[in-house]
Amino acid sequence: METIKLALIDRSYNIIAGENIIKAFGRNAARLKIGTDAYIITNEKIKRLYGNRIRKTMEGCGFSLRFRTVPDGEASKSIKTASSIIADIADYDQRRRIFIIAMGGGVIGDLSGFVASVYKRGVPYVQLPTTLLAQVDSAIGGKTGVDLAEGKNLIGAFYQPRLVFSEIGFLKTLSQRQARSGLAEVIKYGVIKDTALFSYLEDNYPDILRLKTGALEYIVCRCSRIKAKMVSADEREEKGVRTLLNFGHTAGHAIEAAGRYKLHNHGEAVALGMLVAAGISRRLGLLPESGVKRIENLIRAVGLPTRITGVTLSAVINAHYRDKKFLGKKNRFVLAKGISKAVIRENIPLEIIKDSLRERMRGSTALLRAAGKLDR
Amino acid sequence: METIKLALIDRSYNIIAGENIIKAFGRNAARLKIGTDAYIITNEKIKRLYGNRIRKTMEGCGFSLRFRTVPDGEASKSIKTASSIIADIADYDQRRRIFIIAMGGGVIGDLSGFVASVYKRGVPYVQLPTTLLAQVDSAIGGKTGVDLAEGKNLIGAFYQPRLVFSEIGFLKTLSQRQARSGLAEVIKYGVIKDTALFSYLEDNYPDILRLKTGALEYIVCRCSRIKAKMVSADEREEKGVRTLLNFGHTAGHAIEAAGRYKLHNHGEAVALGMLVAAGISRRLGLLPESGVKRIENLIRAVGLPTRITGVTLSAVINAHYRDKKFLGKKNRFVLAKGISKAVIRENIPLEIIKDSLRERMRGSTALLRAAGKLDR
Repeated sequence: METIKLALIDRSYNIIAGENIIKAFGRNAARLKIGTDAYIITNEKIKRLYGNRIRKTMEGCGFSLRFRTVPDGEASKSIKTASSIIADIADYDQRRRIFIIAMGGGVIGDLSGFVASVYKRGVPYVQLPTTLLAQVDSAIGGKTGVDLAEGKNLIGAFYQPRLVFSEIGFLKTLSQRQARSGLAEVIKYGVIKDTALFSYLEDNYPDILRLKTGALEYIVCRCSRIKAKMVSADEREEKGVRTLLNFGHTAGHAIEAAGRYKLHNHGEAVALGMLVAAGISRRLGLLPESGVKRIENLIRAVGLPTRITGVTLSAVINAHYRDKKFLGKKNRFVLAKGISKAVIRENIPLEIIKDSLRERMRGSTALLRAAGKLDR
Repeated sequence: METIKLALIDRSYNIIAGENIIKAFGRNAARLKIGTDAYIITNEKIKRLYGNRIRKTMEGCGFSLRFRTVPDGEASKSIKTASSIIADIADYDQRRRIFIIAMGGGVIGDLSGFVASVYKRGVPYVQLPTTLLAQVDSAIGGKTGVDLAEGKNLIGAFYQPRLVFSEIGFLKTLSQRQARSGLAEVIKYGVIKDTALFSYLEDNYPDILRLKTGALEYIVCRCSRIKAKMVSADEREEKGVRTLLNFGHTAGHAIEAAGRYKLHNHGEAVALGMLVAAGISRRLGLLPESGVKRIENLIRAVGLPTRITGVTLSAVINAHYRDKKFLGKKNRFVLAKGISKAVIRENIPLEIIKDSLRERMRGSTALLRAAGKLDR
């Protein structure tokens, strides 16, 4: 078990990660003194798998609780779902000592954090992430939000949880696709910050895919530490530090949106986005071809896609220009400068973006190059 | 013209109040460096009256702008209206240099502040209050929110504006009912904090109702200073300082809700709520009968109601127990300890609350006392 502090001026909190720690969850929640009535937002599957264990540890510490399940998938990140949950919380919240627990993956975390941020102008919440993606990334740092038809996360807040509690044991029931999706974000940390982590992944990814405790605990703790540090330095993404965590996400979000969030899950889209960003980095002379290959090989090895299929170039480009990460008319990308260093670049020529997308859309790079279709 | 600083650790801002200052609004907004594209939320009447002046001062400083009008009244404080505005902002926000201007009364201020707090996890906003109530109270301090069927302001945030710009000239077009509604909050400041202000009101209320500039400027500046100080000391209403501003609002909200927000406007409900709170204060020995009389006389003199009509006692009591200001099963009231001092009291016996409500529902106090229906 490891405790990592996410330091903020007046809202520091702990990330606690380890195996078989769930029985201590009630005790840790009680220590926060944030209320007596827990409102737990989760989905049916997670409730069935882990609901009783949560009930036991919470009731053992004198909490009352109510579960609320939402359907799986991005569609639950809506204002409609959020409003319906808030009405239910208002009904439950008779003693005015309520707090919220987000028990699930990224969708549940974003939705629950948003609900906590706006219910009665803000009530405390705790992240209890159950997927690899949520444990290494989305549960940490207080980015919350719901979607509008006009765009993802258009409605949201920076609102920090009071505790992130990552039970490694919860990851044992992940599907391979979910594990891979989380791995995409882990690879991201390697590329932007941590050569040792990247090498570890190259050597040990089979253990992660086999969901071995030691490997999972290692990457959850390592990524949590990196993210905690970056969020501490730049909570609201204003100083160019937290921004680096968007590596792979600019093109990734566009690819995800172009596929209407059905073709690719978030990790798959981020994997493709990282390859596009690596291609741009290479074209700008920031990353050698060998670096692109190393990233591509790892992504392929873990079973994540390396080819963009099912969407057109123009659909991706259109989605691109709606992305939150554009500032003014300028585009803005996080690019790789070798492995373990990232930089922010603006005003990338559109042709370079398009070439880097095309490279991932047609046949293999080698074939394209042979056909003279690539710039070098 | 007066500039009052609202001091907060990292989000201090100015309240600027004066007559005929609107021509300097563009310059003051430009100084904030919060964007180039202003999105102005207002209503049809205000746009017709003042839209051109805003356009002139803003365009003169190089801003682009888009107006969005919403219907008058509490019904506009809805998630539906907020979502529709956010979709429109996303369309307008092509250069990613947007900020929001709330140009109106309390409803527009609360709604616009909420939209600003959640659009893309928060964009800057400016309050340009056009009613007395908004200038002396609701535009200051960052309480934002929209309503659900389950309760008022159930969805919201503490989110501070970057500037409050109170053009006294805007108040010249207020109806008498709107002026009185604002006066209720001004009387509140007198009762909880400021004997001199209370005396000033007793002597000068006719000038305020005649909308004379000097009197309006005096009370707007005086109230802004009081509120700025209380919000600085206790931004999130956690330390029992800002809480005092709720004097008259506990019973007031219940009366407003019992009348389904149609029978009384906010100021009228607050006036009645202050009289109920004064009655409770008297029953608890905090306020002499002469103090109650002094408050009642001023409220009556300005033309605000002193009798609760059109709602039943049980409707008010039921609405009461849904109010946000209850903590746990305990009730909590702000009570008057003489003029210019307020205290917080919890667990007021229900009979005392009911008696104080009944006192305002039936005939006059004297008649009730004669009939032996009052406790003393």
